Amino acid sequence: MADFEETLYDAVAQKFRIDKLYFENKTDHQHLMIFHNAALGRVMTLDGIVQTTEADEFVYHEMMAHVPLVAHGAPQHVLIIGGGDGGMLREVAKHAVESITQVEIDAAVVEMAKTYLPNHSAGAYDDPRLQLVIDDGFAFVRDDTRHYDVIIVDSTDPIGPGEVLFSEDFYAHAKTRLAPGGVVVTQNGVPFFQPDEVTTTHRRLARHFADATFYCAPVPTYYGGFMTFGWATDATELRGLAPAIIRDRVERAELNTRYYNADMHGAAFALPQYVRAAMQGE
Amino acid sequence: MADFEETLYDAVAQKFRIDKLYFENKTDHQHLMIFHNAALGRVMTLDGIVQTTEADEFVYHEMMAHVPLVAHGAPQHVLIIGGGDGGMLREVAKHAVESITQVEIDAAVVEMAKTYLPNHSAGAYDDPRLQLVIDDGFAFVRDDTRHYDVIIVDSTDPIGPGEVLFSEDFYAHAKTRLAPGGVVVTQNGVPFFQPDEVTTTHRRLARHFADATFYCAPVPTYYGGFMTFGWATDATELRGLAPAIIRDRVERAELNTRYYNADMHGAAFALPQYVRAAMQGE
Repeated sequence: MADFEETLYDAVAQKFRIDKLYFENKTDHQHLMIFHNAALGRVMTLDGIVQTTEADEFVYHEMMAHVPLVAHGAPQHVLIIGGGDGGMLREVAKHAVESITQVEIDAAVVEMAKTYLPNHSAGAYDDPRLQLVIDDGFAFVRDDTRHYDVIIVDSTDPIGPGEVLFSEDFYAHAKTRLAPGGVVVTQNGVPFFQPDEVTTTHRRLARHFADATFYCAPVPTYYGGFMTFGWATDATELRGLAPAIIRDRVERAELNTRYYNADMHGAAFALPQYVRAAMQGE
Repeated sequence: MADFEETLYDAVAQKFRIDKLYFENKTDHQHLMIFHNAALGRVMTLDGIVQTTEADEFVYHEMMAHVPLVAHGAPQHVLIIGGGDGGMLREVAKHAVESITQVEIDAAVVEMAKTYLPNHSAGAYDDPRLQLVIDDGFAFVRDDTRHYDVIIVDSTDPIGPGEVLFSEDFYAHAKTRLAPGGVVVTQNGVPFFQPDEVTTTHRRLARHFADATFYCAPVPTYYGGFMTFGWATDATELRGLAPAIIRDRVERAELNTRYYNADMHGAAFALPQYVRAAMQGE
């Protein structure tokens, strides 16, 4: 059986044995592949880059959903940009929100994930609170008129279709879609190999939001140590909430997580020296 | 030019391009290789497993040295077990300690590292406070009569010569070598792929120390998200020192770090749900 070798970097790669190939196709937008690996469960790749695996997706989805939703405290309306595999939706749906709007550009990713990665959405695509929109995320935030308490930008890397979701125009549009007290979080790459994403995103977010920073989590198959999530809000008090408040909210929410907990919530905002330096463009 | 492919796991691997091979030899103890990679700088492998790279060694060495030394507050005598590449010694030597004893089993690792990884030790092998002992680490802690404020077990994985450094007998001997208020830290693998190491080590440490836990840091080329460091001490107050105390000590020590800072010190002790579960053997 063949191997999958990631093409993200030039001199280093991660390599997964393809124990069973479920699907391989060039969609209108991207080259999609889903296979089984003995160590990682089912793996989805787009254009040669690992998007998600059954074994470690919980780290990414839990940290990207629960940190902003718990920090907000009383989210009612949530917007997910991207996230076609359904894992983000599953975690958001654990919260007592009124509506979840998900905007995914590629209908094929949703369909393939429902078929081949059913544990990602775990039935959440049938949630009556969900409005699923197949559309360009950039156009959606530019043209939409509603407001959201939390916007989660669960994008690919800033290569190909995901690139506009890292643009300053996108962040400016997203800000206009936030309700008062709202927060935007974004997938922002692995700073060990992609420090420029930290520098660029921080500069762009800081022009539009009173509090623009990052928080971190190590997702094993996003190679290179931990990844950063962009954190942007005018509600400057949300980042530094007292641990006792976070603990109380986490207990009441009964989120049933494998990575996230109240300790990890606070700890994730601690930034290593080299990330602080990258934020300043050093 | 050939590639290096790590043999640690069966179904997943990391692969580095060998841009220049500096050294390859079977020593008395291990198969040692040192090469250059465009993304990682110089890389040292032992028996097919990545030991250290110039690009990311700072995460590992800073977190393993500064967390116990800063938490201790006034360390005078430090024992390093292993650490032949010299990176741990370099970080320990940044502190105003009286003596540093390093016990490395393999003289060839020290010599090769001095020649091919000079940035790791950065001259610290000439530090007049250092006593370098080429000996088996297990035998050393069993037979030694001195006491240390901090013991750093910078071992390989629990395969081959490093295995005894994960044994309960070793931990018991290490405890007898601690001065009052002392702390032992250990390299304890990547829990995403090696959760049994968390379960086993926690059980063994908890039998001998009043406080036995782990702290975490993601080292990019220790594949699989973050790694855990064992933390074992009878000085139960050391783990939860007030952030202001840590900040003050870190500022005064002027450690000039790229990863470690006062925020990362405290945050590293936050443990994800699945690590907590592994600690309980679940």
